[in-house]
Amino acid sequence: VRHAVILAGGSGTRLWPASRRARPKQLLALGADPEAMVGAAVRLGREVAGDVLVVTAEAQVAATRLVIPGVELVAEPFGRNTAAAIGLAAAILLARDPDASLVILPADQHVADRAGLARVLDIALAAAEQTDAIATVGIPPTRPDTGFGYLELTAAAVPGAVQPVTRFVEKPDLATAERYVASGRYLWNAGIFCATAKRLLAELDAHLPDTARAVRDIARDPALARERYQALPSISIDHAVMEKADRVVTVPAAVGWDDVGSWAALPAVRGVDKAGNTVVGPTVVIDGSNNVAISDDDTLIAMVGVSDLVVVKHGDAILVIRKSAAQDVRKVIEELGARGLARYL
Amino acid sequence: VRHAVILAGGSGTRLWPASRRARPKQLLALGADPEAMVGAAVRLGREVAGDVLVVTAEAQVAATRLVIPGVELVAEPFGRNTAAAIGLAAAILLARDPDASLVILPADQHVADRAGLARVLDIALAAAEQTDAIATVGIPPTRPDTGFGYLELTAAAVPGAVQPVTRFVEKPDLATAERYVASGRYLWNAGIFCATAKRLLAELDAHLPDTARAVRDIARDPALARERYQALPSISIDHAVMEKADRVVTVPAAVGWDDVGSWAALPAVRGVDKAGNTVVGPTVVIDGSNNVAISDDDTLIAMVGVSDLVVVKHGDAILVIRKSAAQDVRKVIEELGARGLARYL
Repeated sequence: VRHAVILAGGSGTRLWPASRRARPKQLLALGADPEAMVGAAVRLGREVAGDVLVVTAEAQVAATRLVIPGVELVAEPFGRNTAAAIGLAAAILLARDPDASLVILPADQHVADRAGLARVLDIALAAAEQTDAIATVGIPPTRPDTGFGYLELTAAAVPGAVQPVTRFVEKPDLATAERYVASGRYLWNAGIFCATAKRLLAELDAHLPDTARAVRDIARDPALARERYQALPSISIDHAVMEKADRVVTVPAAVGWDDVGSWAALPAVRGVDKAGNTVVGPTVVIDGSNNVAISDDDTLIAMVGVSDLVVVKHGDAILVIRKSAAQDVRKVIEELGARGLARYL
Repeated sequence: VRHAVILAGGSGTRLWPASRRARPKQLLALGADPEAMVGAAVRLGREVAGDVLVVTAEAQVAATRLVIPGVELVAEPFGRNTAAAIGLAAAILLARDPDASLVILPADQHVADRAGLARVLDIALAAAEQTDAIATVGIPPTRPDTGFGYLELTAAAVPGAVQPVTRFVEKPDLATAERYVASGRYLWNAGIFCATAKRLLAELDAHLPDTARAVRDIARDPALARERYQALPSISIDHAVMEKADRVVTVPAAVGWDDVGSWAALPAVRGVDKAGNTVVGPTVVIDGSNNVAISDDDTLIAMVGVSDLVVVKHGDAILVIRKSAAQDVRKVIEELGARGLARYL
């Protein structure tokens, strides 16, 4: 049976002040519709699988439950990156269903064409089930982004086709990324993939045996979770498994995917108006373009004579940041902690 | 007897969103102490004169009374610029006191050294009373500002000395302003001056007779105000009287004066921190300088990678404006009106 596993344990700070400790990125609704990203992931999971299991952090269980009531949650006592989270879900589902096949979906991504992605996932699941492959979804790049990993193919990508992956590539520099995009043989690694639970645990047995043992133990006895998790290495499924596994394939999916890794990604998600600005909430932009202005309530944002700027009002905080420095919001997080202003985190 | 007249009828929009229709600039406290500018003007008036009369607009009477309770207010039914407002105050005070001498103080200025200005006003009042002069206060310029009018002297300015004014000069261009500052013979016109009520009304009789007649009529019968005011020309005391009057003198006063004509003036009023930023309220500025960041409550303002920017959060509005374009806040006012967002004005 097909099961969807939603990875919802992130605590992303790159979308501060919308994302906070108590409201991580996956609980936000950044697209035009008011559905939180984790809710959209659950809905997609239900479309392509029989049931949905959400892996989240203990500290986020309550907030997550409010957003997706009635969905089964597994709480990790500590964050140990994706290898542990996926391993735990695979062990739990395998114990219930020896023929479990899984679709792994990050909870904090924006997908414009969800129906298109559902069709691709059907193809990827079938490939995983019929050939025992690990079947990733690869996104044809629309820009030479240096913030993503890439999948290398043997030939030009063909949307909807199952193609072998020869290599997982780490975040490249700009020149390399430009070469990748021009070649047509590289896809963004979206962190979405399908495999049978049996295959996944076999890979963990081979490449990360301590983690494999721990997640099997926890699946048998959840009371062991805290003690066993603490000792686990924090490592991504890409590093632990993907880069080492045989029979990795991908299905290219041009579905308007974005991981919304910073406020600079918002124009891709929300579009731009005639003046080239992306605005949400009551806003007035005069003599400026390429701005992002977001207000979460009736507070007006008025911008005059500025361009390439991000202004976000959310709750009790306002961020004003150069768009090209949007990743530097982490400096605000550090500074707030250092200056005893953690109440804004 | 000496009387202070405070001109508090302005509806300045250049400090939006702190200044609003319901809270004009003179009701704001922009300096480090929490006293509204009109309150500071009243206090100065009490120090140099026996009583204080505040001229304000009908629509602002209630808000003004809250800020300076117990102070005598005269309400203009329509704004008709400073010639009418000063003429009305002069007529009212002359009717009570034939020997009235007046010190005219705008209500929306910041003065760092109020005691110093009080000393200069004593000198100016004495000159006005003893020589029947119009005695202005001139501010030695600290920068070639093109937003002020200038007073031209016959010789270099001497702080505290009574010196003849040969000419009132309109706002100059930058090259002219630089020449003025370099010469030492030009002072900023602060709109502060002293004269007897009799002399002021005589000047109005000579140069603006309709206004002189109207304000005398209203002083006799306040019920006439609405009808008589409506027809008056809107003209400044500078244009109507100062530029034409004989025996105009000035007393140079280096007292840390600023009219806070836009947010760009705030560093002069509030100072700058080590990083070169002027911040009020909870703020974090990273990788940036020459910024102004003001929050009126507990809302945090975090700025990253931006310089020469003004960010003001006040009530239900946030302004983000290039410092060099700070005068363009009027464009926001226009746009809000045009777009049916007048609730933010």
